[in-house]
Amino acid sequence: MNTIGHLINGKTVANDPRQQDVINPSTNEVIGRVSLASQATVEEAIAAAEAAYPAWRDLPPIKRARIMYRFKDLLEQNADKICEMITREHGKVLNDAMGELQRGIENVEYACGVPELLKGEHSKNVGPAIDSWSEFQPLGVVAGITPFNFPAMVPLWMWPMAVACGNAFILKPSERDPSSALYIAELGIEAGIPAGILNVVNGDKEAVDTLLTDKRVQAVSFVGSTPIAEYVYTTGNANGKRVQAFGGAKNHAIIMPDADLDNAVSALMGAAYGSCGERCMAISVAVAVGDDTAEALIEKLKERIAALKIGDGMDNSNDMGPVVTRQQLEKIEGYIAKGIEEGAELVVDGRGLKVPGFEDGNYLGACLFDKVKEGMVIHAEEIFGPVLCVMRVDSMQEAMEIIDAHEYGNGTCLFTRDGEAARYFSDNIKVGMVGINVPLPVPVAFHSFGGWKRSLFGDLHAYGPDAVRFYTKRKTVTQRWPASGVREGAQFNFPSNG
Amino acid sequence: MNTIGHLINGKTVANDPRQQDVINPSTNEVIGRVSLASQATVEEAIAAAEAAYPAWRDLPPIKRARIMYRFKDLLEQNADKICEMITREHGKVLNDAMGELQRGIENVEYACGVPELLKGEHSKNVGPAIDSWSEFQPLGVVAGITPFNFPAMVPLWMWPMAVACGNAFILKPSERDPSSALYIAELGIEAGIPAGILNVVNGDKEAVDTLLTDKRVQAVSFVGSTPIAEYVYTTGNANGKRVQAFGGAKNHAIIMPDADLDNAVSALMGAAYGSCGERCMAISVAVAVGDDTAEALIEKLKERIAALKIGDGMDNSNDMGPVVTRQQLEKIEGYIAKGIEEGAELVVDGRGLKVPGFEDGNYLGACLFDKVKEGMVIHAEEIFGPVLCVMRVDSMQEAMEIIDAHEYGNGTCLFTRDGEAARYFSDNIKVGMVGINVPLPVPVAFHSFGGWKRSLFGDLHAYGPDAVRFYTKRKTVTQRWPASGVREGAQFNFPSNG
Amino acid sequence: MNTIGHLINGKTVANDPRQQDVINPSTNEVIGRVSLASQATVEEAIAAAEAAYPAWRDLPPIKRARIMYRFKDLLEQNADKICEMITREHGKVLNDAMGELQRGIENVEYACGVPELLKGEHSKNVGPAIDSWSEFQPLGVVAGITPFNFPAMVPLWMWPMAVACGNAFILKPSERDPSSALYIAELGIEAGIPAGILNVVNGDKEAVDTLLTDKRVQAVSFVGSTPIAEYVYTTGNANGKRVQAFGGAKNHAIIMPDADLDNAVSALMGAAYGSCGERCMAISVAVAVGDDTAEALIEKLKERIAALKIGDGMDNSNDMGPVVTRQQLEKIEGYIAKGIEEGAELVVDGRGLKVPGFEDGNYLGACLFDKVKEGMVIHAEEIFGPVLCVMRVDSMQEAMEIIDAHEYGNGTCLFTRDGEAARYFSDNIKVGMVGINVPLPVPVAFHSFGGWKRSLFGDLHAYGPDAVRFYTKRKTVTQRWPASGVREGAQFNFPSNG
Amino acid sequence: MNTIGHLINGKTVANDPRQQDVINPSTNEVIGRVSLASQATVEEAIAAAEAAYPAWRDLPPIKRARIMYRFKDLLEQNADKICEMITREHGKVLNDAMGELQRGIENVEYACGVPELLKGEHSKNVGPAIDSWSEFQPLGVVAGITPFNFPAMVPLWMWPMAVACGNAFILKPSERDPSSALYIAELGIEAGIPAGILNVVNGDKEAVDTLLTDKRVQAVSFVGSTPIAEYVYTTGNANGKRVQAFGGAKNHAIIMPDADLDNAVSALMGAAYGSCGERCMAISVAVAVGDDTAEALIEKLKERIAALKIGDGMDNSNDMGPVVTRQQLEKIEGYIAKGIEEGAELVVDGRGLKVPGFEDGNYLGACLFDKVKEGMVIHAEEIFGPVLCVMRVDSMQEAMEIIDAHEYGNGTCLFTRDGEAARYFSDNIKVGMVGINVPLPVPVAFHSFGGWKRSLFGDLHAYGPDAVRFYTKRKTVTQRWPASGVREGAQFNFPSNG
Repeated sequence: MNTIGHLINGKTVANDPRQQDVINPSTNEVIGRVSLASQATVEEAIAAAEAAYPAWRDLPPIKRARIMYRFKDLLEQNADKICEMITREHGKVLNDAMGELQRGIENVEYACGVPELLKGEHSKNVGPAIDSWSEFQPLGVVAGITPFNFPAMVPLWMWPMAVACGNAFILKPSERDPSSALYIAELGIEAGIPAGILNVVNGDKEAVDTLLTDKRVQAVSFVGSTPIAEYVYTTGNANGKRVQAFGGAKNHAIIMPDADLDNAVSALMGAAYGSCGERCMAISVAVAVGDDTAEALIEKLKERIAALKIGDGMDNSNDMGPVVTRQQLEKIEGYIAKGIEEGAELVVDGRGLKVPGFEDGNYLGACLFDKVKEGMVIHAEEIFGPVLCVMRVDSMQEAMEIIDAHEYGNGTCLFTRDGEAARYFSDNIKVGMVGINVPLPVPVAFHSFGGWKRSLFGDLHAYGPDAVRFYTKRKTVTQRWPASGVREGAQFNFPSNG
Repeated sequence: MNTIGHLINGKTVANDPRQQDVINPSTNEVIGRVSLASQATVEEAIAAAEAAYPAWRDLPPIKRARIMYRFKDLLEQNADKICEMITREHGKVLNDAMGELQRGIENVEYACGVPELLKGEHSKNVGPAIDSWSEFQPLGVVAGITPFNFPAMVPLWMWPMAVACGNAFILKPSERDPSSALYIAELGIEAGIPAGILNVVNGDKEAVDTLLTDKRVQAVSFVGSTPIAEYVYTTGNANGKRVQAFGGAKNHAIIMPDADLDNAVSALMGAAYGSCGERCMAISVAVAVGDDTAEALIEKLKERIAALKIGDGMDNSNDMGPVVTRQQLEKIEGYIAKGIEEGAELVVDGRGLKVPGFEDGNYLGACLFDKVKEGMVIHAEEIFGPVLCVMRVDSMQEAMEIIDAHEYGNGTCLFTRDGEAARYFSDNIKVGMVGINVPLPVPVAFHSFGGWKRSLFGDLHAYGPDAVRFYTKRKTVTQRWPASGVREGAQFNFPSNG
Repeated sequence: MNTIGHLINGKTVANDPRQQDVINPSTNEVIGRVSLASQATVEEAIAAAEAAYPAWRDLPPIKRARIMYRFKDLLEQNADKICEMITREHGKVLNDAMGELQRGIENVEYACGVPELLKGEHSKNVGPAIDSWSEFQPLGVVAGITPFNFPAMVPLWMWPMAVACGNAFILKPSERDPSSALYIAELGIEAGIPAGILNVVNGDKEAVDTLLTDKRVQAVSFVGSTPIAEYVYTTGNANGKRVQAFGGAKNHAIIMPDADLDNAVSALMGAAYGSCGERCMAISVAVAVGDDTAEALIEKLKERIAALKIGDGMDNSNDMGPVVTRQQLEKIEGYIAKGIEEGAELVVDGRGLKVPGFEDGNYLGACLFDKVKEGMVIHAEEIFGPVLCVMRVDSMQEAMEIIDAHEYGNGTCLFTRDGEAARYFSDNIKVGMVGINVPLPVPVAFHSFGGWKRSLFGDLHAYGPDAVRFYTKRKTVTQRWPASGVREGAQFNFPSNG
Repeated sequence: MNTIGHLINGKTVANDPRQQDVINPSTNEVIGRVSLASQATVEEAIAAAEAAYPAWRDLPPIKRARIMYRFKDLLEQNADKICEMITREHGKVLNDAMGELQRGIENVEYACGVPELLKGEHSKNVGPAIDSWSEFQPLGVVAGITPFNFPAMVPLWMWPMAVACGNAFILKPSERDPSSALYIAELGIEAGIPAGILNVVNGDKEAVDTLLTDKRVQAVSFVGSTPIAEYVYTTGNANGKRVQAFGGAKNHAIIMPDADLDNAVSALMGAAYGSCGERCMAISVAVAVGDDTAEALIEKLKERIAALKIGDGMDNSNDMGPVVTRQQLEKIEGYIAKGIEEGAELVVDGRGLKVPGFEDGNYLGACLFDKVKEGMVIHAEEIFGPVLCVMRVDSMQEAMEIIDAHEYGNGTCLFTRDGEAARYFSDNIKVGMVGINVPLPVPVAFHSFGGWKRSLFGDLHAYGPDAVRFYTKRKTVTQRWPASGVREGAQFNFPSNG
């Protein structure tokens, strides 16, 4: 049985007494055991990070960037291996894992540009012969706590930039699918990141709480559910840390009467059912403007759902794999039952799906609800499963009010051909990431990721330019030089050193 | 008796039952009464702000900037009046009040540039025919809570930029010297800020707590002592707000053997005793490298202190006015007694000063301690009075270790002629604002202000570029357009929807 | 008779032997005489500028900016007087002069932000303990040569930013309407610009050639016709100067079948006939996609043209004033005759207009051609008069090919509601300034102005961020400090100075 | 015999009738023949570039960047081969060739960040509901003409960024050492640059003139001597192109009395004699402040020169190889004779050096002149050989006046420990690239390279941020949308146009 340990100070360690099963969601077989770090183990990682930090901080940024170039190459060379790890532990189809990894690699590419990104502002003559400039210095030891749904990508949102900025990093990946993050970190070490600068600790609440309370940890980045995000944010802040904590979502797409409907439906299929909807940017609500639009939309979605191929993620011909855990499957089924009970119309029922050869897997077919209304639990809460809710409204304004009233404000999308509608929507909607005819408006790696309202706790977004700000602190230097120095003639008997 | 009220929705209001005396520190006479806002009064201001916000947000930034230009003119035209208000309630010498106001005006000037500062990043072709850009949108209703020591400047750090960015603002100034902030806000309204966009509530903990807990307030900026800063930060965060909270300081200057000593002493006199040392950027510790340096430094300081002129702030020939309150005076005197008790050498004793004609004022002469050591209370804590501590060390390294070990990390300064020493110091010292031969390295208005360690809670610094980020949130739009539109010939019978 | 002289070294000078009449285009009366600077006079201005430059260069940018704030106030206070000067010498309606001046003031506002705009890039540790930064230093003495059609605005595009960046400036305005530029420069001096830093020389080719060849002039900005722009560019370059030279234009608007036609027609009326079409951003060609669009467009334009009120510019109830000179009027009439001869259909003929009370003025009514084709002279050349040409095409592609094939590439506009069409057009059209439903897409002052193809000679655009680059040169400093300095213990017997 | 051809449209071509010998400077043996492109051959390359351009322009920048990452890997994998090509044709020692190549690779790294670097500025609400943004679009077909002294690096300054920005490129390397540039371009094609996007034409004046006059070429970057740079600049400009042309240099180092002299001498040895002084950033003049400084400097230099090892570049134990050509050797010897004749003191005479086994090579030992004065030819002109001139002055001011009076303003350096001297020097010296204790202040790849005065013709510097501006042109879009569109309810029967 494969035991998944920690990476501390450049070495693999797995001597914690507590362990937990790692399970293949396609079969529910136990495929490994993951060590759960004790407080002492986490403190060992923190100590290693703190020891390695000063030399790393002083290395010219271009040297740190060079390691990122090598790391990118190693990720590309080992992409298949990484994706198999993801699929085996998470369940998503290999192609989808590759998409995830590619997004992660793009963050490594952005970190390669850190010499440019760390440039400070320089002002001559802020006063007579006085100059001033800002520097963006690393924080020291920083930590990241990442979720199960993107086991490779979300760690790559965080540590490459943190490390490229000169910090030492401790990653705590999800204990459900920890292998890819650990292996990727090993590739980082292989690329040249010094021992101690990048550490991985697997674990649960004990590990998390140690990271949140240890005074040596300067900052924490978190991605997960909103209640935990809030806990991480307030606990970390109370312990003197800089924190950014990304939480849940309920992303709505509005379909206007003038939309290119075929395009919109294609887009929604991927956005709603890709990776079983286990994405914080998944579209889980489609808001159709006008009943004609709604009818046409439902018809086209039904056709497309009927053609979906669901099965083991190792087979790239499948469109969708299993849900991550049995527990999560049951939770989703509970939401479906609740939706029916609340009066929504279950147009397509994906429950009861059996995949031949994978009868014990956590499988669920795509589900489609029509006539979902505000106030229903299936609208208020994040289901995190392959369930798309259609709502019907009479105007774009009504659709926008539904979105603005929702607790979450991560992503949203408008399907239209009309420039004015697009501009009004993107300007006014209270959501951090907005797509116009783009269903998953995840910003590219050279922009930054972040929702509004209770989807994000913190000022600065993830990756992109904001990550540089999050992983550094500003220092402002103001400098003048006394006159009557060497330049003005005192120089001929100065200095007397010898 | 003059009653100082609130400015809510463009009108002056003063009907709260609770009031507090406002006292002239030069005489200890009561010169006014300030209304203390109840929760209901603060909520009225919040409601006014929320109502005024949408129209202001939609106004083109250049229109908002134009109001800032007019506001700058009004501040300059009314500068004498404002400075008299400051001196009467705070005690600082008029010239010093003028310096404070000038720094505040510079922040208004920076806010005039808001059309430039709000520019977002635009990327063509993040994918095929897909564009993406970021916008920095205002937050909504935001609040500022400001301290007694810079009653005009610190409010001007905050609200002009917040308002120029499109927010509605509620200011709670210090209740000890509230008049100048209120009058300045009235000038803002006169300049054209709409009613409701800029509100002032005077008050105490009840007002503060209302601002910190009301869900409609999106963000809070605070400047004050570290314990309150921490309370504001954690309370505001727990209530879903963005917070930046600036706390206390203990700023050290290192004097190197090669320093231009006359220049250093001149600089230290102003930095230590200006405004009675009641500045978060005051130099309160001078660390001399080498005993020769220390001896020379002490001699020159004694000479200069002997020449200091102390008296009523309305007389510009004075160098230093009274301490802000009787209570603060007693607290400082307690520190002096404690320092003597701990074994520091009180080289100059300013206690017992009586200013003719102002015998009841809170007067204290400049004090100078030699041989202060780490571990003494007068080194560990912020005295906030005209007390300069000299420490003696054998090397620059030792001096830097003292600074780095201190709880606070606001400002610091090195006096030297040597390029290498300056570079090493500014690179490595764990302080946010660093001066090289500049004793008060307060960044100019187009840079940003912020300390490290327990001098600042939050990610983003005050004023300058960071203020733009603090008072806005990033929205990222990703856009593509469906083909087969009007351009490609379908236009003549377009759209055929029905 | 009013003699308009030069402003040299802070003094008005008018002793050149050569002079030229200044004429009111509404009456053709001589209203003044303008001095034409000899080479010696221009050299005097250059010498004054060179002498004043070093002190100005060393003044902190914020001090230079403060003068710009005062200058903005003076412009606003004297706006009516300036606009009357413009109207009297140029002919445009007062309201239109006010619009021009307002655009000019916006450039002054942008120059107020010069402390922010001059920030250089600072990199720590480009190598071990090596830092590097860039500074944008002023050039020295620079010159501007400006056209008759915006006598106040175009000078304000240039010198406020040049001067704010630390340069000394010599302006040569158009000799046809020189008064407003001279008066505005006097206001600059009144605002605090030192004598010698801002000079105005009136003149003709002798003055221009002196500026283009004198070695002390570091850079020249020019706005005028393309042949002169090209001459200025190559002559200035051959004499070692940095040059940007803005030339002619032929700006097309495309009207799509889905456009909001009422809006488009309103927009076109102002863009084609405002200021008699004497604007380098005027729309002189409307390209209608589809004959239905063309017919509807022509009908609506005819109605609106019939309602145009033409007369003396001092009367704000007029929509259009006279053409600038008799010679220019005849040139336009020649183009109209040529258009008829070439087979274009003159739908509205504005020739022969007599304005009661101003019978000797250079008046011409609005003219509208239909069925203009590529190859016609009235399409190939810039008419610079109130003549709008309508072209008819079958597709947007065809319209874009016409625009791309034209010699000029200054501005263009698309009227549509369709997001895809707008994106395709703005991406692909070979024109520097693009409007979507905006007929005069003159960038605002915090962006930059510049055409493509033969509308601009030079790399950098006018005003906005590019102006900062044009009026400064980059200096890059790379710095390391030798070890074994004062910091490391040699300090105790160092320095031996006294 | 190896024939070196062209790379046109992805294929190697070598059918021009005219050829020229390529010679090993260490032996003066002919080691190859290079094709000299006719006008027709160059036009073929231009046509290929123009045809390939549109598709490349439309590729998302991140896709273009990915090719740069692969190209970097290929350069690193083939570094030894490239360096051998350089040494064989140019003569420099292999280690030095590797340094050159490394600098070139850093420019490729910077080009990898092009998605970040191409970001434009986006402004919401420049007017009511009007947005405006700038895009930096590629130019089309652009060309580079590069010198013999950095046959690999200078091409890498140019084309990777030009190509990454979306342009098609034609490189004309030096015909004396063309192999490495050609091979590197082949690696670019191997990395994925499409055929036609990157072309190499070898040749002489015919090729250059074709590039300078063909209307399809939009821009030219040139590095070489000042007379040719000026010719390229004016000819290119007269033909409607954007041009930047980098010319000659005479770089002075000032040695202050307080300098760390051992460090300064080490630095000078490499800066004066590295690559035989055939570098535009070589230090060719050392200005000693004070006779004591001069004497000490000369003594130490003599010692170090005596230890220099000179010989074939393939042997990495050598410090210096041969001069590039026999003709160049004779020119340098002419300068030495002239210097003696003018009265300078030849302290070390490197003439007459014979390297065993390489007796026919272009060898010259290091030469050192003392007491060089302004007005001497060896000070006025660029020698481009291993000849260091020492000048003696009495003050730093005098040294700076010498530098400022010189025709060239490329690089300069000050050796001191004094912060004030460094600041005064870097602020005031009229040179574009300034070192403080850094003898070759070549900016790193993420800053930009450029001299002042007659060392550079053009506004924008080479590589770094300025290269992005040089290889793109600004387009500014201003956009508003008509109301009454799909959003406002007209959508259900919209549009009714027909």
